[in-house]
Amino acid sequence: MVAEFIAAVEAKDIDRALGYLAEDVSYENVPMDPIVGRELTGVVLRGFLEPATEVDWQVSREIVAGNVVVNERVDRFRIGETWVEVPVVGVWEINQDGRITLWRDYFDMETYTSQLSTLTDAG
Amino acid sequence: MVAEFIAAVEAKDIDRALGYLAEDVSYENVPMDPIVGRELTGVVLRGFLEPATEVDWQVSREIVAGNVVVNERVDRFRIGETWVEVPVVGVWEINQDGRITLWRDYFDMETYTSQLSTLTDAG
Repeated sequence: MVAEFIAAVEAKDIDRALGYLAEDVSYENVPMDPIVGRELTGVVLRGFLEPATEVDWQVSREIVAGNVVVNERVDRFRIGETWVEVPVVGVWEINQDGRITLWRDYFDMETYTSQLSTLTDAG
Repeated sequence: MVAEFIAAVEAKDIDRALGYLAEDVSYENVPMDPIVGRELTGVVLRGFLEPATEVDWQVSREIVAGNVVVNERVDRFRIGETWVEVPVVGVWEINQDGRITLWRDYFDMETYTSQLSTLTDAG
């Protein structure tokens, strides 16, 4: 389910991606407050992916234990001529219907924002 | 092995903690360069724990898959009257001798440094 969700994100097919989420999903970028609910997650995800012409999330490791999935990834976003790259660990929970109820990413925010601001400075 | 290592860290017993690490361990705080080798890891860990009068790493989730351990934690350090708290996911690899060869922590560096600088400002 997580792999399918990520494939939809990479295709920037937000509607398909949202189909893998439970209605009460909690989407958590750990330094920030949780985003609760499928609809709001869609709004955030759309805004987040919008500037990227390509999205490539490279999963180096995936571990499944019961209803929990953990993946170690490098999330890559092509913005203009540049790839922004962020190392991430995701902790995911899946409910009995096979939908994602928790998507919690651990990463260093500065690693992301510093690459974005380099882009802005150059532009 | 990871649980024993963390217990030794919490006891600030660095020598005991190092006994759980392979000689060629890679200790990685993801935004930073890896620290390679047990001896250097000991130096860094000692310096890192030194200001804390109490160390309390609360593991909320641990998943074991083959020689890989993943744990979701809040690493807490008491410095003076304040608890500094950092949400972390650790990815660990264990070798055939039962020693830790990889300790890779994902976290938001700013979450840590901003709490430390508040302490410094207050002091």
